[in-house]
Amino acid sequence: MALALKKQGDWEIRIWARDQASLQESEAIVCPAKASCRLEEIIPGAKIVVLCTPIVAMGRLARQIYPLLDHDAVVTDVGSVKTAVMCELAPIFNERFVGGHPMAGSEQSGVGAARANLFEGAVCILTPLCSPEASSSNVSLQAVRKLWSAIGTRIFEMSPEEHDASVAMISHLPHAAAVALVQSIGSQNISLQEIAGGGYRDTTRVAVGSPDLWVDIFLGNREPILQSISEYMNQLQTLSHLLRDADTSKLRSFLKEAKEARSQLRPI
Amino acid sequence: MALALKKQGDWEIRIWARDQASLQESEAIVCPAKASCRLEEIIPGAKIVVLCTPIVAMGRLARQIYPLLDHDAVVTDVGSVKTAVMCELAPIFNERFVGGHPMAGSEQSGVGAARANLFEGAVCILTPLCSPEASSSNVSLQAVRKLWSAIGTRIFEMSPEEHDASVAMISHLPHAAAVALVQSIGSQNISLQEIAGGGYRDTTRVAVGSPDLWVDIFLGNREPILQSISEYMNQLQTLSHLLRDADTSKLRSFLKEAKEARSQLRPI
Repeated sequence: MALALKKQGDWEIRIWARDQASLQESEAIVCPAKASCRLEEIIPGAKIVVLCTPIVAMGRLARQIYPLLDHDAVVTDVGSVKTAVMCELAPIFNERFVGGHPMAGSEQSGVGAARANLFEGAVCILTPLCSPEASSSNVSLQAVRKLWSAIGTRIFEMSPEEHDASVAMISHLPHAAAVALVQSIGSQNISLQEIAGGGYRDTTRVAVGSPDLWVDIFLGNREPILQSISEYMNQLQTLSHLLRDADTSKLRSFLKEAKEARSQLRPI
Repeated sequence: MALALKKQGDWEIRIWARDQASLQESEAIVCPAKASCRLEEIIPGAKIVVLCTPIVAMGRLARQIYPLLDHDAVVTDVGSVKTAVMCELAPIFNERFVGGHPMAGSEQSGVGAARANLFEGAVCILTPLCSPEASSSNVSLQAVRKLWSAIGTRIFEMSPEEHDASVAMISHLPHAAAVALVQSIGSQNISLQEIAGGGYRDTTRVAVGSPDLWVDIFLGNREPILQSISEYMNQLQTLSHLLRDADTSKLRSFLKEAKEARSQLRPI
């Protein structure tokens, strides 16, 4: 994100990281940027604060950030789960907070995997607070929209609950599917990978994503993901039945429907 | 395949196709090549005949080809299923036949999708006949090996049964997984695809493959595929249980095992 903003030119970028090593790595590729492991050197004066830590670390960090914030600063995050994050952060930042989730990234992690064009054309979902207790201000929402527009994302707005149900299907389920597929091969003979073609390669690409990150996501969005896996198993069961019955016509329809639906996906 | 052989230079290429339209398309991109819809203009004089039709069409075509074959000609095929194909073709060609299956291709079909480098570095599985009734001659096997080596594939040899069980897991199961994943999204709301990131895109890429081709493959390799789907559902069930129990430690191990196994896949 810092690389992408740097490319835009007119943003002053500040980087905080917990440890000195990743801070130096970040500083080296984004330079010039103000970088420090000390929140008090980074937060005061910042106009938008973006939380990019694991979900479970956000609450504690937010409580450390709050007293250092400028009175007109806005806060957002990039967590893959929103209901849990919003419940924790909304009471801290109130109308100054807008949840965010850029649907971009890769199976890689760490500063070395950063690409300035990662977000170009990608979707970013914003989940403004909208409850009787707290509601994101319009100023906050516009500031966060401006940030994500600047680096080329296509912005969608929805409630945290709608976000979590949607990404359980379109993002977390594909991860579960990929991981279970690799485990299936492993349960037989992992050396079968030696004869793999492009189908297996692409279908399982995301399975090398960070286990720590994904444990967080799975547990943070547990119910919607359980429902998505259950729906997926229903579809596999249907396919299995059609195959067992050798029902050529319904099998062809099943494959054709999937082809037509998938063909509607926006090309890159 | 014709494009790849043309690139090698020292092969005389002949193309047969059922209809004039695809014949002309093929001829235009492979040119110069002898091309005809009449087998009697193509088969006599050919040293290696490669059957590249849908599996269900191979038997009939093979019976038309047989009387036209030179006495020293060798026959192979590129079908994704081997036991059924071998049962049909072995009695026709006997020791002059070697089964083949290049693990390459894409979700696209038709002459327009041809690429001369499609097979470079890809795996090609050869299934020589090896039964009391018929056994591929060493001459046939060497001729077919030479063909696939010339265009850069890495050759594996195995029995038709081992082939079918292996590709059910490593090729046909990923297809089933992708198709069922698209159907799961469709069962909720296909417009969820609008917010999809790269994970869903890659995991479902193969789902736009030809329904006709895949009906053939699914029915042609039914029992091994049913077993592979069943194993896959077991793994999804395991993942579901770990998630329902919020068993952080076992969930992390499950994800970590998959990451480590998938990391062993040969990079492209």
